[in-house]
Amino acid sequence: MRTLILGGAGFIGSHLCDSLLAKGDSVVCVDNFYIGTKDNIAHLGNHPDFRFYEVDASDLNALLAVFDQEKPDYVFHLAANSDIQASALNPAIEYKNTYSTTFNVLECMRRSGTKKLFFASTSAVYGEVENNAGEDSTVLTPISYYGGAKLGSEAMISAFSYMNDMSVLIFRFPNVIGPRLTHGVVFDFIGRLKGDPSHLRILGDGNQTKPYLYVYDLVDAMVRFMDVPSGVSLYNVGVDTATSVTRIAEIVTEKMGLAGIPFEYTGGRGGWKGDVPVFQYDLSRIHATGWKANMTSDEAVARTVEQVLSCKQ
Amino acid sequence: MRTLILGGAGFIGSHLCDSLLAKGDSVVCVDNFYIGTKDNIAHLGNHPDFRFYEVDASDLNALLAVFDQEKPDYVFHLAANSDIQASALNPAIEYKNTYSTTFNVLECMRRSGTKKLFFASTSAVYGEVENNAGEDSTVLTPISYYGGAKLGSEAMISAFSYMNDMSVLIFRFPNVIGPRLTHGVVFDFIGRLKGDPSHLRILGDGNQTKPYLYVYDLVDAMVRFMDVPSGVSLYNVGVDTATSVTRIAEIVTEKMGLAGIPFEYTGGRGGWKGDVPVFQYDLSRIHATGWKANMTSDEAVARTVEQVLSCKQ
Repeated sequence: MRTLILGGAGFIGSHLCDSLLAKGDSVVCVDNFYIGTKDNIAHLGNHPDFRFYEVDASDLNALLAVFDQEKPDYVFHLAANSDIQASALNPAIEYKNTYSTTFNVLECMRRSGTKKLFFASTSAVYGEVENNAGEDSTVLTPISYYGGAKLGSEAMISAFSYMNDMSVLIFRFPNVIGPRLTHGVVFDFIGRLKGDPSHLRILGDGNQTKPYLYVYDLVDAMVRFMDVPSGVSLYNVGVDTATSVTRIAEIVTEKMGLAGIPFEYTGGRGGWKGDVPVFQYDLSRIHATGWKANMTSDEAVARTVEQVLSCKQ
Repeated sequence: MRTLILGGAGFIGSHLCDSLLAKGDSVVCVDNFYIGTKDNIAHLGNHPDFRFYEVDASDLNALLAVFDQEKPDYVFHLAANSDIQASALNPAIEYKNTYSTTFNVLECMRRSGTKKLFFASTSAVYGEVENNAGEDSTVLTPISYYGGAKLGSEAMISAFSYMNDMSVLIFRFPNVIGPRLTHGVVFDFIGRLKGDPSHLRILGDGNQTKPYLYVYDLVDAMVRFMDVPSGVSLYNVGVDTATSVTRIAEIVTEKMGLAGIPFEYTGGRGGWKGDVPVFQYDLSRIHATGWKANMTSDEAVARTVEQVLSCKQ
């Protein structure tokens, strides 16, 4: 199968390239290197089944040229802004890098007759919810521009799927961590402590608690679900455990040999405006298929910290 | 109050201009005359509280200049593509005229500190639903690009409202008819019969059945709900009766003195791909506020046919 991966040089996308090549697929990787890096795919440069295009998916004509050239069977759309704090100051980032890229992917598929799509959505489409968020049972009220642009993408996917008989798999991702991570709380804590190991500044009250999914578990699910039925199939994907920010701080300081240093909290429930402080999914739909994450949230955090510290990425 | 109406020269927008001016508001009307017309607002040209800007809301800088100049207190966003059949052939129409206009309105409000917004959403966000569609109880799976772009707009509104403390009222409109109507089934039937009164061609099987809301009833609700609370308030707005396409054909032919001419059905459930053949809202939320449409769906159709035929628009 010929797969096209938008955002294929990113944190998750590059692991997906590895996994698809390992199972024998032909992989066309598209990235603009805004967040993705050449380092993430450097090891694939000479692979006979790997091709790379430096293209910005918000440029419709450039993307159309890739589709014309490669005629993919299956498209993974992972290209998006993934830095919610950056777009909180400038929502146009989400308009261009998250929503417009999705519209362009759909339009390329419509024009080229490509029928199979994977879309990386997010827990941020739910906004602040009190109970476990279920795919069809929870009202969707995103509180970040990122969540708004992803939910808008899901909406347009629904229409394109119906109008063009596309088979689409949507996963709503939680926080994902692991090798090649470039930002987020684990990464930030390590950076701060390398700068000043005397104390650790923590945004919010430390009680923000979210499930952290290990990237290998996620990529395993993405590949396993590739035989997608017609229409739109939607799943929360995640892990049924969660880790508080204070617990992350404890794991990081312990692994760095800094256990016991003072934590200084900035206070408040959320880390920043648009952050959802406590979140947990209803995972019954994806668990009913037989898939379940191998690693708990705490294990994923601990493993990631070890990898970042050892630079064995 | 200084209100800004995007799409103010359109079918619904121009009636809203009339209504707001009648209650003493200052009205700033913005339109690009793609669908709206100069005729619709010609009678307002000399009104001391009315100003007009010929601006395309998909042009962010042009729209920012209007906000800078006028500093509105309240924005009605009615600018959108309203011709679902046209965008079915070219989804980029919805991207530009429906989604991008909403993003730009929100961005202008964010930058200028404008806090109150009305957004014209649509029943098309629901897609095909079996039971009465409820605001929070029905899964949203739009099947037209129009519905996809409107639902994406709602999603981005949710984020902007939270991030900028905006008070937003969203009405999901059904089919709206009345004076100044420019397209849709009533308008099409009259046009066809003026061309050839010997028979009437009807798309689908004629059983497509939808509620038709009279435009004065809609504008009444829009003005009545202007004192909008903080956050996002969402209502289905409509009428609890509905009219089939065959019944519309009967009303039109009767009013034109053509009762009994043959109806020729093209067959199939929907009029075109992306059309939802049978639809009815759950209106309990808006009825609980005390508002209810004055005119039934059949009455709205009959009154509209009379007006189109008499040209008393």
